[in-house]
Amino acid sequence: MLTIDTLLFPRWIVPVEPAGVVLEGHALAIDQGRILDVLPAVDAAARYLGRITLHLPSHGLIPGLVNAHAHAAMSLLRGLADDLPLHEWLTGHIWPTEGRWVSEAFVHDGTQLAMAEMLRGGITCFNDMYFFPDVTARAASAAGMRACVGLVVIDFPSAWASGVDEYLDKGLALHENLRHDPLISTAFAPHAPYTVAPATLERVRTLADELERPIHIHLHETAAEVDEYHARHGRRPLAHLDALGLLSPELLAVHMTQLDDAEIARVAETGVHVLHCPESNLKLASGFCPVARLLAAGVNVALGTDGAASNNDLDMFGEMRSAALLAKAVAGDAAALPAGHALHLATLGGARALGLDADIGSLLPGKWADVTAVDFGALEAQPLYHPLSQLVYASGRHQVTDVWVAGRHLLKNRVLTTLDADAIHQRARAWRDTIANG
Amino acid sequence: MLTIDTLLFPRWIVPVEPAGVVLEGHALAIDQGRILDVLPAVDAAARYLGRITLHLPSHGLIPGLVNAHAHAAMSLLRGLADDLPLHEWLTGHIWPTEGRWVSEAFVHDGTQLAMAEMLRGGITCFNDMYFFPDVTARAASAAGMRACVGLVVIDFPSAWASGVDEYLDKGLALHENLRHDPLISTAFAPHAPYTVAPATLERVRTLADELERPIHIHLHETAAEVDEYHARHGRRPLAHLDALGLLSPELLAVHMTQLDDAEIARVAETGVHVLHCPESNLKLASGFCPVARLLAAGVNVALGTDGAASNNDLDMFGEMRSAALLAKAVAGDAAALPAGHALHLATLGGARALGLDADIGSLLPGKWADVTAVDFGALEAQPLYHPLSQLVYASGRHQVTDVWVAGRHLLKNRVLTTLDADAIHQRARAWRDTIANG
Repeated sequence: MLTIDTLLFPRWIVPVEPAGVVLEGHALAIDQGRILDVLPAVDAAARYLGRITLHLPSHGLIPGLVNAHAHAAMSLLRGLADDLPLHEWLTGHIWPTEGRWVSEAFVHDGTQLAMAEMLRGGITCFNDMYFFPDVTARAASAAGMRACVGLVVIDFPSAWASGVDEYLDKGLALHENLRHDPLISTAFAPHAPYTVAPATLERVRTLADELERPIHIHLHETAAEVDEYHARHGRRPLAHLDALGLLSPELLAVHMTQLDDAEIARVAETGVHVLHCPESNLKLASGFCPVARLLAAGVNVALGTDGAASNNDLDMFGEMRSAALLAKAVAGDAAALPAGHALHLATLGGARALGLDADIGSLLPGKWADVTAVDFGALEAQPLYHPLSQLVYASGRHQVTDVWVAGRHLLKNRVLTTLDADAIHQRARAWRDTIANG
Repeated sequence: MLTIDTLLFPRWIVPVEPAGVVLEGHALAIDQGRILDVLPAVDAAARYLGRITLHLPSHGLIPGLVNAHAHAAMSLLRGLADDLPLHEWLTGHIWPTEGRWVSEAFVHDGTQLAMAEMLRGGITCFNDMYFFPDVTARAASAAGMRACVGLVVIDFPSAWASGVDEYLDKGLALHENLRHDPLISTAFAPHAPYTVAPATLERVRTLADELERPIHIHLHETAAEVDEYHARHGRRPLAHLDALGLLSPELLAVHMTQLDDAEIARVAETGVHVLHCPESNLKLASGFCPVARLLAAGVNVALGTDGAASNNDLDMFGEMRSAALLAKAVAGDAAALPAGHALHLATLGGARALGLDADIGSLLPGKWADVTAVDFGALEAQPLYHPLSQLVYASGRHQVTDVWVAGRHLLKNRVLTTLDADAIHQRARAWRDTIANG
């Protein structure tokens, strides 16, 4: 008998690799933060002795969900201003509020609130883009949550940096500080082609090449943005990035609702990853990302929630379901984006975009034990013919009971173990009073 | 002091009428099954003594949700066959399974499962269309849940009836039996223009006129259906129903994803109600209902879940959010279908379609006390700037704690009081084994 850290006996395991597989009567063995073994329960009981052993008789284990596009701290602006045209929403509400209130304390408290919500919803890793990424990185590291923080760059000053040079200097310093952090990675995060000058994008590309980091950017979010860009610069933003040499497997393109056939082919050819945010695209009336066509062309697609100001939750179960439903309607094909593939987007697709697929995104031995347990015991989950269908089409994030990141038990029977839920709650209420009365 | 049955002190009350109002620090007084009063909490405490008094300090009260289109018993087929083209799904899976298994016991057990799920999700009334509507009616009445059962008619035999005459005879007898039931009403339910002959539709119209009952029918669900109908009959199904005299405020038209401007104008002019099922339309790739255009034309729109075989849940919180999000994207306008209006569709819109808006659909004194309590106390609901935004864009049905129908407390702190959840659960599992192994 080998003594190991954690031995889990769930009803089902959905490893995501190989695709479509659902294991029943198997166990998951975790040691030193990594998945040691996935094997039949009877063999596991004979071979391993867990320091902690957990029986989860009505649960499925899935890889921890990867939220591939977030502005975590914006959870403090959840529902502040809804049902408004995009321009009025941004210029009349979100930007003025951010201009007045964004600070280290805002980012710390907002990121903690977001992480509490994400962990309780089965998310183990998030790819963030916001001011004060150093604060986000420290908060995630302290909570034991995995994150990729964006080294943000934008053509106007903020509380975080006065201009492009300072954005880049601070970003590079942060990248250097985080180089040996096992949980936190970095990506360059120029906001969008319409808010970052070409010369800056070229500098970002050079730095990203040198440091081998991804570039995380909003791209082709709305038709109006693409049309205005074309009118001003004579080409669409994607063609602009192509000319600057940015289209590569290091580019993480968020939204991508406006794409013609040639653009899809070019995205596929260059290995660009698409970070799809279905609910944000609907709520802001941005358009429909052609997910089925991107997948058919061989593009890697990941899923993200976007910020809570435009969503209004950080719920990857909701995004998985919305992505699967919407892809069918947009493709006019009820067989498009089946349940298992939607889960792939929400796990391995995100891991691959972040360059982390050797380490997370599926339940394979050797990967970090980033694991989410989902309870199918409630009446609403009956009858259960296919766990994958149930997971994507009939489950909610409240069914998540337990979450591990690198083997550490961060959510234990719905209780957060590294974040103080009451304190986070109180601070969110205080920010609400401050902002609403400000 | 007046002694009354129930006095509720929530944090917020959203009465739906008047539109957009959110009351804070108010109480809801219930007596003899009806709403007696909605008034400031301090006045309520001075005026009324509740036999039962309930303080709900982090909750909002909303009218019970009206599920305007359901096939309740199909909950036993939840997730049986997903991600298939519509024709293969129906002819290869759903219809053969129904042909083999639909019976009184199937409808009883499936309806109970559906009602348990619906009540736990804040739904107090459902408009059903399925075989054995007598069984559905008895099950709903026994559970104390409000329902409109469909007097189903279709051009092929089933376990319920051998042909059109028997469908109509049984329907009329059931209508007669239910005439004095305070909870259960009836509607004629011819399945669709492509499955019910014109002569039968004319008989239905005559009977519906005589008995003053609505007609509940699937209409313009997919482009293929409309095109095939046009090719065969030389006009679209809506024009066909118009010629037969069926377009009127008694017609409840389900789906309506294919509508040109003239058709929208005609629907508005004739007072037809549209029963919108956003998630079913997406999942079956049926198309996009032009909700914003219908509302702008003055059409009453209600929301439904459709059956769990094509959804896969009976979750009106999900449908509200999907309807609000999708309407914006389809209209290309982020201001389309704001949160308060989405709640209207899910409550008063449904009540009006069923001809029940004098009695339910809003929290006005004199109406039946069909009430749902939603808890905004969890961390995921923070910060809370606007209860209506939070309700529609950031809440889940698991936040429903208590439900009353006609003043009767059917869900009490998430526990069902008139349905045996364990027995329902067991029978759903037994059906799963029977059907999966059959």
